[in-house]
Amino acid sequence: MLEELKARVFRETMRLVKYGLIGLTRGNVSGTDQEKGLMVITPAGVPYEEMRAEDMVVVDMIDGRVAEGGKPSGDTLAHLHLYRTFPELGGIVHIRSVNAAAWAQAGKGLPPYGTVHADAFCGEIPCTRGLTENECKNSYELNIGKLIEETFKQRDYMEIPGVLVKSHGAFTWGECVEKATENAMALEAAAETAVKMKFLAPDASEIDSFLLEKRYTKKHGKRTNRSKRK
Amino acid sequence: MLEELKARVFRETMRLVKYGLIGLTRGNVSGTDQEKGLMVITPAGVPYEEMRAEDMVVVDMIDGRVAEGGKPSGDTLAHLHLYRTFPELGGIVHIRSVNAAAWAQAGKGLPPYGTVHADAFCGEIPCTRGLTENECKNSYELNIGKLIEETFKQRDYMEIPGVLVKSHGAFTWGECVEKATENAMALEAAAETAVKMKFLAPDASEIDSFLLEKRYTKKHGKRTNRSKRK
Amino acid sequence: MLEELKARVFRETMRLVKYGLIGLTRGNVSGTDQEKGLMVITPAGVPYEEMRAEDMVVVDMIDGRVAEGGKPSGDTLAHLHLYRTFPELGGIVHIRSVNAAAWAQAGKGLPPYGTVHADAFCGEIPCTRGLTENECKNSYELNIGKLIEETFKQRDYMEIPGVLVKSHGAFTWGECVEKATENAMALEAAAETAVKMKFLAPDASEIDSFLLEKRYTKKHGKRTNRSKRK
Amino acid sequence: MLEELKARVFRETMRLVKYGLIGLTRGNVSGTDQEKGLMVITPAGVPYEEMRAEDMVVVDMIDGRVAEGGKPSGDTLAHLHLYRTFPELGGIVHIRSVNAAAWAQAGKGLPPYGTVHADAFCGEIPCTRGLTENECKNSYELNIGKLIEETFKQRDYMEIPGVLVKSHGAFTWGECVEKATENAMALEAAAETAVKMKFLAPDASEIDSFLLEKRYTKKHGKRTNRSKRK
Repeated sequence: MLEELKARVFRETMRLVKYGLIGLTRGNVSGTDQEKGLMVITPAGVPYEEMRAEDMVVVDMIDGRVAEGGKPSGDTLAHLHLYRTFPELGGIVHIRSVNAAAWAQAGKGLPPYGTVHADAFCGEIPCTRGLTENECKNSYELNIGKLIEETFKQRDYMEIPGVLVKSHGAFTWGECVEKATENAMALEAAAETAVKMKFLAPDASEIDSFLLEKRYTKKHGKRTNRSKRK
Repeated sequence: MLEELKARVFRETMRLVKYGLIGLTRGNVSGTDQEKGLMVITPAGVPYEEMRAEDMVVVDMIDGRVAEGGKPSGDTLAHLHLYRTFPELGGIVHIRSVNAAAWAQAGKGLPPYGTVHADAFCGEIPCTRGLTENECKNSYELNIGKLIEETFKQRDYMEIPGVLVKSHGAFTWGECVEKATENAMALEAAAETAVKMKFLAPDASEIDSFLLEKRYTKKHGKRTNRSKRK
Repeated sequence: MLEELKARVFRETMRLVKYGLIGLTRGNVSGTDQEKGLMVITPAGVPYEEMRAEDMVVVDMIDGRVAEGGKPSGDTLAHLHLYRTFPELGGIVHIRSVNAAAWAQAGKGLPPYGTVHADAFCGEIPCTRGLTENECKNSYELNIGKLIEETFKQRDYMEIPGVLVKSHGAFTWGECVEKATENAMALEAAAETAVKMKFLAPDASEIDSFLLEKRYTKKHGKRTNRSKRK
Repeated sequence: MLEELKARVFRETMRLVKYGLIGLTRGNVSGTDQEKGLMVITPAGVPYEEMRAEDMVVVDMIDGRVAEGGKPSGDTLAHLHLYRTFPELGGIVHIRSVNAAAWAQAGKGLPPYGTVHADAFCGEIPCTRGLTENECKNSYELNIGKLIEETFKQRDYMEIPGVLVKSHGAFTWGECVEKATENAMALEAAAETAVKMKFLAPDASEIDSFLLEKRYTKKHGKRTNRSKRK
């Protein structure tokens, strides 16, 4: 079932391992077949060295049940909530790579400083508030999804295709799993570069807004103004 | 003798090399067969590039003698002391990777700042005091084991499956050698992330205690309260 | 057409991927056949994992049109302007590696601190001013080329074969694509070393001018005094 | 001629490439056959990706002439001077890896902070003074050798088997080329760990002298007191 999508989700997972974004710290990756209402997601508890395409788990997006395969990623409910809330998504990546996690642990949004950032994110990558004790104790994974939804109330999720989750890591997304992976790579690179830049120039200013706009539209075409329509 | 356990200890050693936790700086890895009272440990002085599963050394856990193989790791007595003191252990890893060693050389325990830490360690990873001159000069390796035992007098060694040894590096452990390796990887990643986070936010607070608890129990089930029973 | 040059441009691209200078952050590489008036450049939008030598694009250096292949790198106009302005060039590399980009985002030129720098660059690697809003909105890629030309008004482009472009990354060059790659590697290594050196000694002085001169001439022969002739 | 020694020098060079100590920044490696009065050293100008064991160059240690092979490393005269001055050496490595070079560019000796350092170096790794203008202009490579000799006037070169050369990089050595490589790896790891430790604890104290002594003698046997004899 969905063998091609499984192969793509698996391939993107291996790219993230190769580039060091998951491995030491674990993460998860998903992609959807919107027509069939199915999500393919990485399995829980399988070491990356042993993971195969056929280990990817198929989940029904309506009822959240496993349609094929073993135990899905522990973050499955967060993925599902994001797909339901952000209808244009076709892929989601969750990483806790060192630099993304450092910003998330610092509880700070990542301002746009350079073109690596601007090519993928048309503005600051926000950091969520922390979850409350109640949100942690009940429906924790679902509440991560809701927390991200809340953080994007005033933002366009396609122009800022990623978020830092306080004390945790990052989620990135896109219209397909390949785009979600590219955005994860851009986020980690921008986060690492920004740490070093801040050391060299603690008061460095953000990238000029017209350069941010130029780079973003060069890669993505005209901005949709989805956020303004809201 | 114990060919399967040798293969596992060897495979975990190679994982640590692959992820850069040992290599430039040397380390050692062991696992036990509790029924037979035998420990399998990495050999002394064999370059990682040339190491093979059959080079792993079998040590009698009662008398500490080599049951099969060449010269065992120079830290053998520390491993044996930990297995005797912490009866639930089945695997131990010793690393001196850059970030773990940086915290150890700073003489500081590693506070829990994020979920990478919390998934493996339910609280601060403590740093031992330094050894005294006498402890260095006599039974040095055994005294490293005793120093760790002392550091865990008021701590639960299964909820905090690792320690920083002042001026030296880290030991991690678990119910099997694979768990010990995962905990070593989590410790190094948490240590690196914390260095960068401290640069971005020198006064960043620790992870909320309810999130720490949530993450830890999500991975490990209910806490045992072993520490409270003591 | 130009199969050998394509193979060389491709091989240097793969070297930059191998050493981590492009990959997470994208870049581009070109080389020229001056006699035929043709440039070979990496394609736009092809993942590095899938790129092959035959994907390299041949561009006519006079009219900028594609002579063979698919869509060339988005920075093609910047490359072409540099080849026209700096006639001794035979290869150009554009990177946004972490340390080069950190200096570029900080908007600071990279002073010569050590011999890794001096072997390739006979002085500070300058950082351009930022583009104006008008320069961004109209002929952006060409204006990057002109911005670099402006930055080298008072500098010898063969003695300082690279530049930091504000908020962006770096361009390096040389008499062939292999030299451009080596200069990119030297720039990134010098940039990383300088970040760490500045942490250890914020007021460290630059390399002695006679050592800078000695190292540079040892590798490149007598200085041309091209800059003085201007 | 000396095929086995060539194979060993080549293998150690590849180990340094694998661990990232040479590559982006170039280095060189040598080993000697003292009986025959010959040194085998890496060639000048050959890319590491293409280097083969048969490219290693054989140099006569008496007259410094090439006995077999192409152009030897540009640092050949420094290597020869060290072999003549420090008679127990059988191998020398020169690196300019990021962390070693950062300390060298800062002009600071690397104090012993942890056991990775202590296992290889029984005390601070000194940093030379800078060369004078005259020393740069005349017999530059030989003067690097003499500068290192001068730095070790009051030090035992077998107990401190390495040095930082101001604004340049590091040389390490040992009784054979394999030991020189291990010492290079220990130096780079100690240098990187110390940078991070200093960030966490700017006033951290050095490793206790009795632990330094314990670790060093554990690896190397009793100290020779060569320095005291001087």
